[in-house]
Amino acid sequence: MAFDERDLIDRLFRPLAGPGSLDLLDDTALIVPPPGCDLVITKDMIAAGVHFLPDDPPETVARKVLRVNLSDLAAKGAEPLGYLLGAGFGRRVGERWIEAFCDGLAADQDIYGIGLLGGDTIATSAGAVFSVTMIGTLPSGTMVTRSGGQSGDALYVTGFIGSAAAGLAAQSGAETPWVGLADPVKARLIERYRLPEPAMALAPIVRAHASAAMDISDGLVGDCDKLAAASGCTAVINARTVPIDPELIPEAVEPDVLAGLFTGGDDYQILAAIPTSDESPFCEAAAAVGVDVSKIGRLVAGSGPVTVLLDGEAMALPARSYVHGRGKEGP
Amino acid sequence: MAFDERDLIDRLFRPLAGPGSLDLLDDTALIVPPPGCDLVITKDMIAAGVHFLPDDPPETVARKVLRVNLSDLAAKGAEPLGYLLGAGFGRRVGERWIEAFCDGLAADQDIYGIGLLGGDTIATSAGAVFSVTMIGTLPSGTMVTRSGGQSGDALYVTGFIGSAAAGLAAQSGAETPWVGLADPVKARLIERYRLPEPAMALAPIVRAHASAAMDISDGLVGDCDKLAAASGCTAVINARTVPIDPELIPEAVEPDVLAGLFTGGDDYQILAAIPTSDESPFCEAAAAVGVDVSKIGRLVAGSGPVTVLLDGEAMALPARSYVHGRGKEGP
Repeated sequence: MAFDERDLIDRLFRPLAGPGSLDLLDDTALIVPPPGCDLVITKDMIAAGVHFLPDDPPETVARKVLRVNLSDLAAKGAEPLGYLLGAGFGRRVGERWIEAFCDGLAADQDIYGIGLLGGDTIATSAGAVFSVTMIGTLPSGTMVTRSGGQSGDALYVTGFIGSAAAGLAAQSGAETPWVGLADPVKARLIERYRLPEPAMALAPIVRAHASAAMDISDGLVGDCDKLAAASGCTAVINARTVPIDPELIPEAVEPDVLAGLFTGGDDYQILAAIPTSDESPFCEAAAAVGVDVSKIGRLVAGSGPVTVLLDGEAMALPARSYVHGRGKEGP
Repeated sequence: MAFDERDLIDRLFRPLAGPGSLDLLDDTALIVPPPGCDLVITKDMIAAGVHFLPDDPPETVARKVLRVNLSDLAAKGAEPLGYLLGAGFGRRVGERWIEAFCDGLAADQDIYGIGLLGGDTIATSAGAVFSVTMIGTLPSGTMVTRSGGQSGDALYVTGFIGSAAAGLAAQSGAETPWVGLADPVKARLIERYRLPEPAMALAPIVRAHASAAMDISDGLVGDCDKLAAASGCTAVINARTVPIDPELIPEAVEPDVLAGLFTGGDDYQILAAIPTSDESPFCEAAAAVGVDVSKIGRLVAGSGPVTVLLDGEAMALPARSYVHGRGKEGP
């Protein structure tokens, strides 16, 4: 595509500019760190044909790249401040696509209270690629890492697991367990793939109660492997306690269907290790802000891949993670 | 390409990790802001076939994406702290290419005293795309913007102008003014295109003396237009005072050749507006740190495109800026 970067900035990006953006007149953003705060910075990229589908609505592509980054902040206990956008518009992207993309940015800026701080707009020789750097703040010394978990800590997740993976499968039109679902249910699941709903309200609660946390982006099992390994232990997950969308449950009694939900990508839920003494206050605080949390297992002494128990037996998992652009991977 | 992100991180990226990276075990970087400092953040992307040539050495591709971002920081008066890397490796990129790319990162990390803080690695469906977010610091309230210049301020640039554009033209093999240059000279010019040399040592001097500054990435004339407009004035540049590599001067007596050098991309030199009373201390401080600076003109009252005078006449410029992926653009 051909576009005029100055025109894009003046007409579409400047209205999105937040404090610290210097009105996008400069090549840099200026962050005056709030006193007593650390900054948490994350950067996730998404590419057409890999993380989103080329005919996904531009509004949801924009919102997804913001939300996958917001999800990382929430899991660390940080509140978002603003973001820089690297936009590589592909050859087939026209001006109307970009306008709709910016409408998506504006909608989520309002929802999450963030502003555009700066970035870069380029033409790419092929597909569209977007890179967001999201900046958040939290009180000094309170960032929750992956590595603070202790053997015995309970493992909690937010929301439902596997909905986005089921949505992606349903959208593919292939012969999947979800082929018999009603169209409105399929549409809702596809919406979960396109538009994650990061549990931002949980950030201060994670900070107050979690010993370790991360967001689940590449599949519950593989991401739990990572948190347990970083915390120097392993974990046991009880498959029957993993929260699944009620519409999926009739099919998800089969172990291989469950395994698919537990190792699919794009959940963008929070996985948190909560010390036993913090479980009640954690659950009460989550309920108070309207975030559903479910206890799915526990960190245990040892090392190596986590065990997923299904009715008392360790599940055989053909893969542990979803790798974008490559499919399932593991062990 | 197929690659294993975990393996890449463990084997190639973790050795590059700096303070605040949390050893790349988390999805985020943690920045503890130095007391009394603001943070300056910039983000530039480069794409294969647009900002670098697909057969450029991977080491220089890595170093170029760091340096185009470092250049932005220097022009704002900031000292670099570290960076996040978004790496979209294209289909044709293999493991050896990535290893060499990381060697390039390591080399420049040593030169510029920066560390890798985090990022994301994805596969793209087509060409390679890299996005760097560079974070710098400076004393609170001292960032130099584009908009602080005043009519009467002198305009200075670092280094030579047009060398990278001449290098790119020489490399193309097309019939250009540079076709007759000796091979070692061509090689040196191509090196300027591949490997900018941002004048990092000038950062504290810019901070101390410049009323406005920016880096020149899209051509001297177009970028000077931007600085003058942001500062609410226009400017006059004296073409004969613009510093040009001595090897280019025999050809660069022709107005159209000069115009090409003044509107070519990839200089990554600093353009600074210096109030008259600061000119001597600015020049002395630059000389003391070994950075060549040249006075090329002055901001003047008015508005609209800057005037480039050649032997007393305003030059006719067919374009004002170089737009990556599109070539020259104007007026």
